[in-house]
Amino acid sequence: MDVRALVFDVFGTVVDWRDGVAREVRRLLPGVDAEAFADAWRERYAPSMDRVRRGEREWANLDTLHRESLDALLVEYAQDPDEETRAELVLAWHRLDPWPDAVAGLTRLRERFVLATLSNGNVALLVDMAKRAGLPWDAVLSAELFGHYKPDAEVYDGAARLLGLARQQVLMVAAHVDDLAAARGRGLRTAYVYRPHELGPRGVPPATDHAADLNVTTLTDLAARLAPSSVT
Amino acid sequence: MDVRALVFDVFGTVVDWRDGVAREVRRLLPGVDAEAFADAWRERYAPSMDRVRRGEREWANLDTLHRESLDALLVEYAQDPDEETRAELVLAWHRLDPWPDAVAGLTRLRERFVLATLSNGNVALLVDMAKRAGLPWDAVLSAELFGHYKPDAEVYDGAARLLGLARQQVLMVAAHVDDLAAARGRGLRTAYVYRPHELGPRGVPPATDHAADLNVTTLTDLAARLAPSSVT
Repeated sequence: MDVRALVFDVFGTVVDWRDGVAREVRRLLPGVDAEAFADAWRERYAPSMDRVRRGEREWANLDTLHRESLDALLVEYAQDPDEETRAELVLAWHRLDPWPDAVAGLTRLRERFVLATLSNGNVALLVDMAKRAGLPWDAVLSAELFGHYKPDAEVYDGAARLLGLARQQVLMVAAHVDDLAAARGRGLRTAYVYRPHELGPRGVPPATDHAADLNVTTLTDLAARLAPSSVT
Repeated sequence: MDVRALVFDVFGTVVDWRDGVAREVRRLLPGVDAEAFADAWRERYAPSMDRVRRGEREWANLDTLHRESLDALLVEYAQDPDEETRAELVLAWHRLDPWPDAVAGLTRLRERFVLATLSNGNVALLVDMAKRAGLPWDAVLSAELFGHYKPDAEVYDGAARLLGLARQQVLMVAAHVDDLAAARGRGLRTAYVYRPHELGPRGVPPATDHAADLNVTTLTDLAARLAPSSVT
């Protein structure tokens, strides 16, 4: 492989969205089952993007989609927090903690590769998250830059174009086999990260993606595989 | 001022394009007056972008414009290097050294603000430059993301939009009064950096920009003004 850049899915792959969102729900909506609320909010994630992807609505970034999903969910939960609380809740997605291996793995990988996000999160969300968590990105790439959500081809193609690389020089790293399948379909290399705790008690992902170029369980493991000389 | 993010012009403001380009010309085109060649190359910069800005041609990123200007300039200089050398010369613009105060100033400013490029350089160029020089950007924003070159309004508006901020929460930092005037015209705050050596012996810029919110001579000076509590 002649890989020059690694692009990362973020929610679930680099950060633990479920615990982070539940933490903010617990703080801002006391009395609500925070984990169940986080799960229900996340369940609306793919359908909300799919409406954009199918052209049923104009482009809206993820902060906007998260807010709309939140407002609908609050009706279901018979909760009516004020505007300020709703805005703070949306920022829960900017304040997610990295998985324990993420910062160490990325820091090591960055010595050898260009590292970028390639997330459906909007740029401001990803910047806030990186600054808070110390994620050492060389570039923050987002669906927002392309006006398309993953798994649309424009996102994978656009990342390689902006990085000035051929698509086979870009390795997509994700904990989700559908994201990797779409990236492979556009000619990117792929690495699957097994994240058994992403969904909490609601299920586990497949242990391996047999179609991926690499299968790892942590980003430090990925670094050991791709940047072995810097392993200490 | 309620400034949350600082966006930086790069060529001339953060890095010394003239010495860096001349260094690579000296290495790759021995016998050519390297400083004169760098100046002549840079003279073609604004006109090449203006053709895009006026709609006389489709979008082309700065690597492409640099290559076209280079090819024309080589004819003028009666030089005919091979393809590999031409490609290496274009990469001179990816390998520019920061002004001596830049890394220290940015590092200090980053403790308090979101820092992003807002350059006509393309994303790959800015990523390569930052990695080589250790420029600690939170985000790499580029004209390329908007399909418009500065001083088009779309670039300044787009930066605030991607950062999720009101335009008056964004401070544009530049060594060029025209860039700052355009940013102010869109509602951004502005800081002028006096860089007397940008043009070598070919002239000096104005010592101050009376219309700017701040006037400084270095990025450490800017940090002392904007992030005084972290000055040691």
